[in-house]
Amino acid sequence: MDYVFSDRVQTLKPSAIREIFKYAADPTVVSLSAGNPSPEAFPAKEIAEISARIMSEDPIAALQYSVTEGYAPLRRFLTDYMKEKHSVGSESDDILITSGAQQIMDLASKAILNEGDAVICENPSFIGSLNTFRSYNARLVGVPIEGDGMNIAALEEALKKEKRAKFIYTIPNFQNPSGVTMSREKRRAVYDLAVKYGVLIIEDNPYGDLRFAGEFLPCIKSFDTEGIVIYAGSFSKVISPGMRVGYTIAPKEIIQKMVVCKQGQDVHTNIWSQLVCHEFLTKYDFDAHLQRLREIYRKKAAYTMDLMDEHLTPNITYRRIDGGLFLWCDLPERVDMQQFCMDAVKNKVCVVPGSAFMANPEDRTNSFRINYSTPTDEQLKKGIEILGKMAKEL
Amino acid sequence: MDYVFSDRVQTLKPSAIREIFKYAADPTVVSLSAGNPSPEAFPAKEIAEISARIMSEDPIAALQYSVTEGYAPLRRFLTDYMKEKHSVGSESDDILITSGAQQIMDLASKAILNEGDAVICENPSFIGSLNTFRSYNARLVGVPIEGDGMNIAALEEALKKEKRAKFIYTIPNFQNPSGVTMSREKRRAVYDLAVKYGVLIIEDNPYGDLRFAGEFLPCIKSFDTEGIVIYAGSFSKVISPGMRVGYTIAPKEIIQKMVVCKQGQDVHTNIWSQLVCHEFLTKYDFDAHLQRLREIYRKKAAYTMDLMDEHLTPNITYRRIDGGLFLWCDLPERVDMQQFCMDAVKNKVCVVPGSAFMANPEDRTNSFRINYSTPTDEQLKKGIEILGKMAKEL
Repeated sequence: MDYVFSDRVQTLKPSAIREIFKYAADPTVVSLSAGNPSPEAFPAKEIAEISARIMSEDPIAALQYSVTEGYAPLRRFLTDYMKEKHSVGSESDDILITSGAQQIMDLASKAILNEGDAVICENPSFIGSLNTFRSYNARLVGVPIEGDGMNIAALEEALKKEKRAKFIYTIPNFQNPSGVTMSREKRRAVYDLAVKYGVLIIEDNPYGDLRFAGEFLPCIKSFDTEGIVIYAGSFSKVISPGMRVGYTIAPKEIIQKMVVCKQGQDVHTNIWSQLVCHEFLTKYDFDAHLQRLREIYRKKAAYTMDLMDEHLTPNITYRRIDGGLFLWCDLPERVDMQQFCMDAVKNKVCVVPGSAFMANPEDRTNSFRINYSTPTDEQLKKGIEILGKMAKEL
Repeated sequence: MDYVFSDRVQTLKPSAIREIFKYAADPTVVSLSAGNPSPEAFPAKEIAEISARIMSEDPIAALQYSVTEGYAPLRRFLTDYMKEKHSVGSESDDILITSGAQQIMDLASKAILNEGDAVICENPSFIGSLNTFRSYNARLVGVPIEGDGMNIAALEEALKKEKRAKFIYTIPNFQNPSGVTMSREKRRAVYDLAVKYGVLIIEDNPYGDLRFAGEFLPCIKSFDTEGIVIYAGSFSKVISPGMRVGYTIAPKEIIQKMVVCKQGQDVHTNIWSQLVCHEFLTKYDFDAHLQRLREIYRKKAAYTMDLMDEHLTPNITYRRIDGGLFLWCDLPERVDMQQFCMDAVKNKVCVVPGSAFMANPEDRTNSFRINYSTPTDEQLKKGIEILGKMAKEL
């Protein structure tokens, strides 16, 4: 049989990160290429307690079919919590529980994008989201990211030029892969430009709670008087990614379409995990838990940056971070970045070449991404020492 | 903001069944409109045991990110099990764990269908799948279903006419909503026609294990020497739908594309639930569990059919079933079916109008669907007595 696939998937390839994971599976290779929360960050004991309680008190509630919109008490709790804590959400918004924040990207794309429409994104940006937009045959328009977020002039240029732009995709806090946090002024500017040019914003915020230094900045969604922001939240980094629970707060009309798409995609999100998240959020001290996570990541990031200062500089430079899971490293212009990453794997340390995160294959970058949350301290030391030896030989 | 949605979702509406659920939420209404497994059918005690064990022995395995393809030991077990027990799967096939079988419909559609392509389906058929096909702007071509499956002459007619047909969608066992099981001869004929006309088959088999009478018939996938069948399996009816775990066995090339689409849709299926399914399948007596389910459904279906014989006939007739969860009831031609279903809700019993399951709005049906697995025996009695009174007045 000669299989004929749809136009939209003809050119899709498995993500470069996942390909690199194959090298990382070799136990002798130190992997700095993942994006997993630190194993010590999981509230495993609490989840075990909650789950045992659910299974003894009302197992059918956790095992039976549920509604597409999500577990009603969890939706209510999150609506109140996000409103009170982050000024996110209004009367004209609704909330949908999703199978991880990744599903928000798919549902929003499916509901909004026609083939050939444009998505404006930070460049570089999260490959998982970019690939979802690509899977609907969207054109990606990359806007360079600076130390304080998108280049606003370039963003306006793109909005002027792209008549078919449907939304701006941004990760304002500790962006993956660049580690950049968008300034308050730029958040406002991005919002104002989106209003001016009549496009939506997807604000993807998986790392916002993982701030271990500096001040918390307002969500773009908190400015959203015009009903143009789709906010994407996730429990993957603060409770558990394996449970696949995320949520989106967005204008009701958009949520309605996303609900219909979700119905045909997985009917509803695993209800057992929704019950567990709800109970963890409401019956335990979630703020104290977040405080504990910040402490874990603060220590681990400081340890990593110390190692990088010692071994990588001056040939490899990097941007210091106040939160999130990733560090973005720049090679000297004369060095072939792809070759460097390949040599690194051969030397038994795996990093992700920056090209994986670019909006278009012709967009040039000489950077690579390091993740510090997944490896042990010993692995971090070993991996960065290897990179350090390579840096000295550049 | 004037929201502009994609062409594909402009006309999509929430499924009629879910709309009817809203009436069914009124506690004074007897709902015969669901499709849930019977609450007594869940292996709740075993799941509680397994989950407690996982959480005490290796919680991180259940809580951390996992791979898109699915938990490797579960994939290996299912590959062997389906091969040995049902002759499903070959060297040229692969397996993908999905978030319920519903996701298989979405991933296969996304990978295969261009806008305007045709899907050939039984008429009536499962609304959840039909809506997924519609969400990719596919045209649905309905082939009338008879007591032993699709009308084969009509199927060949459709295949001849539809140059853009990409696959045939069929539920061979205890079809939802008609309750029909396709005969061995027709399974072979459908396969041979698909080969002849160069189209794929999606064989959706959520109810196959719920056979309480008659002999088991071979899966269409067991004939698949040409690599044209996408087999869709599910644990929703035999373990738990709330956990959202399904699997597809299909040609490797197709699985590869589905994996890439799944990566962008939800990264991977809830890994905790995958671990639970794997342990239930491998460390408990799954065959004995299935035997227990068959006994539950045999009794409950017999009880329901006795009530229907007593109260509904002769004005409302129905097709007797050997398994599955649904009964298909025919009203006399002179009766307005939509009005009947609406009157039923007003009389406090909720059934699903057959029109919800038709491939196209102009396809006529005078039938409605009853589910017997979700209500209690008392509710079944009350509901069917109400329908019986209405039947006498027809």
